[in-house]
Amino acid sequence: MALKTFTALAVSASLLVTIGTPVLGELSREQQGAISARQAHMTLYGFNLAPLGAMAQGQMPYDAEVAAAAAANLAAVAGLNEDRYWLEGTDSSAGNNRAKAEIWSDPEGFAAEIENIAVTTAALAAVAGNGLDEMRAAFGPVGQSCGSCHESYRAPRN
Amino acid sequence: MALKTFTALAVSASLLVTIGTPVLGELSREQQGAISARQAHMTLYGFNLAPLGAMAQGQMPYDAEVAAAAAANLAAVAGLNEDRYWLEGTDSSAGNNRAKAEIWSDPEGFAAEIENIAVTTAALAAVAGNGLDEMRAAFGPVGQSCGSCHESYRAPRN
Repeated sequence: MALKTFTALAVSASLLVTIGTPVLGELSREQQGAISARQAHMTLYGFNLAPLGAMAQGQMPYDAEVAAAAAANLAAVAGLNEDRYWLEGTDSSAGNNRAKAEIWSDPEGFAAEIENIAVTTAALAAVAGNGLDEMRAAFGPVGQSCGSCHESYRAPRN
Repeated sequence: MALKTFTALAVSASLLVTIGTPVLGELSREQQGAISARQAHMTLYGFNLAPLGAMAQGQMPYDAEVAAAAAANLAAVAGLNEDRYWLEGTDSSAGNNRAKAEIWSDPEGFAAEIENIAVTTAALAAVAGNGLDEMRAAFGPVGQSCGSCHESYRAPRN
């Protein structure tokens, strides 16, 4: 029983520490809001990329209406003004997010990535309803844009 | 020590159950994704409503650039296609979300609310950079639209 009790206490303590210590406790309400908004923005990217990726890879039948709607959504989200997202002190070292410090040390490179996703998603939205081949061809650069930005500006999971 | 051990075990067990049982475990991946996307959409509403509300209420100085950007963002989010959000089986009884069953039993009323937020945010975006008075006048109907939809289609916190 001693080992079980110790294990239970240790598990309990570690869970309580995890739950009881807000990861974002050092951040202002504004900073927390910015991180949440960035993550919501990324959730909407993922939600709309999913059916397009599935169609492009043949895992789901092409549906012009669904493809057009998802691509229009992607372009709209990519077009959102991000000025209030990238507040100082909200990189991954602040906890609970994966924004690399390079976002702040290389603002021009980062701005180019943001411009790139806006351009590639707009190009995708222009053709996504025109059939699988056109959609797939325009989907590639969107995926490359995602990958390029994550490579440079998103920290690995820890 | 017996009581402490029992408490530790009980706390440990309850936390493990909480963590070990996904609230959305009965939902498909598609349903979970829809709920997450709806919540991300709402997070972006809140993030962009915040500075406009603070300016309208005099808690923050009016800033035309910030107001215009936030209002444009609101209108863009309100304009997103929501066809893939409102899947059957994703009301509040499915857990971890507050969508009332009325969304599905009263689709016309719900569609009217979605149209209303698109119309009111577009009107706000058209004037938000024109000064505090114009912004505030157009902000009112946006807030009313939020409230009206929540009243009818959002369940109370439980």
